[in-house]
Amino acid sequence: MSAKPTILVTNDDGVFAPGIKHLASIAKQFGDVIVVAPDKPQSGMGHAITINSTLRLEKTNFHQTNLEYACNGTPVDCVKMAVNSILKKRPDLVLSGINHGSNSSINVIYSGTMSAAIEGALEGSPSIGFSLCDHALEADFTAVPKFIEQLIQHALTEKMPKGVCYNVNIPKLRSDDLQGIKFVRQAKANWVERFEERKDPYGRSYYWLTGEFINFEPEANDTDEWALSKGYISVVPTQTDLTAHTYLNEIKNKF
Amino acid sequence: MSAKPTILVTNDDGVFAPGIKHLASIAKQFGDVIVVAPDKPQSGMGHAITINSTLRLEKTNFHQTNLEYACNGTPVDCVKMAVNSILKKRPDLVLSGINHGSNSSINVIYSGTMSAAIEGALEGSPSIGFSLCDHALEADFTAVPKFIEQLIQHALTEKMPKGVCYNVNIPKLRSDDLQGIKFVRQAKANWVERFEERKDPYGRSYYWLTGEFINFEPEANDTDEWALSKGYISVVPTQTDLTAHTYLNEIKNKF
Repeated sequence: MSAKPTILVTNDDGVFAPGIKHLASIAKQFGDVIVVAPDKPQSGMGHAITINSTLRLEKTNFHQTNLEYACNGTPVDCVKMAVNSILKKRPDLVLSGINHGSNSSINVIYSGTMSAAIEGALEGSPSIGFSLCDHALEADFTAVPKFIEQLIQHALTEKMPKGVCYNVNIPKLRSDDLQGIKFVRQAKANWVERFEERKDPYGRSYYWLTGEFINFEPEANDTDEWALSKGYISVVPTQTDLTAHTYLNEIKNKF
Repeated sequence: MSAKPTILVTNDDGVFAPGIKHLASIAKQFGDVIVVAPDKPQSGMGHAITINSTLRLEKTNFHQTNLEYACNGTPVDCVKMAVNSILKKRPDLVLSGINHGSNSSINVIYSGTMSAAIEGALEGSPSIGFSLCDHALEADFTAVPKFIEQLIQHALTEKMPKGVCYNVNIPKLRSDDLQGIKFVRQAKANWVERFEERKDPYGRSYYWLTGEFINFEPEANDTDEWALSKGYISVVPTQTDLTAHTYLNEIKNKF
């Protein structure tokens, strides 16, 4: 047994994506890295799991880590398989990303990247999801390692509460322009969707989901959207109790 | 324009499932019903959306409602398409289910049924997800209508806070044994997974996700798990701010 921490690395853009290459490479400085990541892009998969079909694992070696698999399932499947089928123990740290694109605010519930981190926390491991606010596959990752290293160090030494993970978003800025790390709350926001209708070659309609992000509290100065707009890396401690406690207290004796 | 409320009905078991047939039929007593539901089972899809491929709608008439579509996407896609592409307005009520199987406790984050209700709330409509704690397709729905009617009436008249929906779970009991409705919080719980490995006819491994549900607070008397165990229908008011506020307050000035 190695004394080094076991670090599980996953993502939702797939095992080939540049973002996970950077994350696995940074993670190797801190421990024994195992990569279990989707074999194809799984963006927007949220907390989906595979229960109506079967899962496969294929050994790969794109990241020259201790152990690597491409999985045909979702990001959450990857974490569940890594913990329960491959490692058969709780990793000391679960890292997801680096996502190509923002997962701030309400995006957390659609994000495969963050769902993998949330699943890591549910399994009992300190977990962090990293996203760079740049969708391009050729996104520039040069500014991010020092902040990611700082947060990994923190997660390995600080006792994060069980069931809590971090949602880390990094603005698309040059290293000199990044203002540091801010712990903040999830901004209230939503998407206004527009479905683009097209015709296939047979004259039948099909639709593409597109939309516009609306921040409902642009004046607030304690949200992830605010931090990102000011050049900070936003960190939202994230958990899975969805109960609306305030309203529950109102309604429970009234109904 | 009709003065009757517009009620969107969806689910995750697919437009053919018995549960949605019951729900659409009950909903018709309260307004103009539109059904937009997945064209195939989408259990466990969580808050997944379709962004890497295209969406299709097919007109159907299984439920003899005002307007009906089977959609090739996820439950959340169904709600987004109904609101933004078909109705082009916010429904007065979004109903999801009746799911075949429990969505209590942590199941809320894996559940397509509940993700559809959550999406309805994000779109600004009062929304309820209904689940019967019986996985069987031939589940007995005779005991449920009066409670569903009561909750629909409540949602149409009570001003539910924006962004909050209800996670309703109904125990598998005969009508006489149901104890009524309890507003409760989401129990802390998780699944311990076991992946069942099998060999395909070509000798390659594949895996089925199976698992056991563990309630971390079996002694608590204010959770959905407790209510269900006592024969109550559990209602958890559910929202989408995942911020771990208590921990955020601790860490934000310390880091």
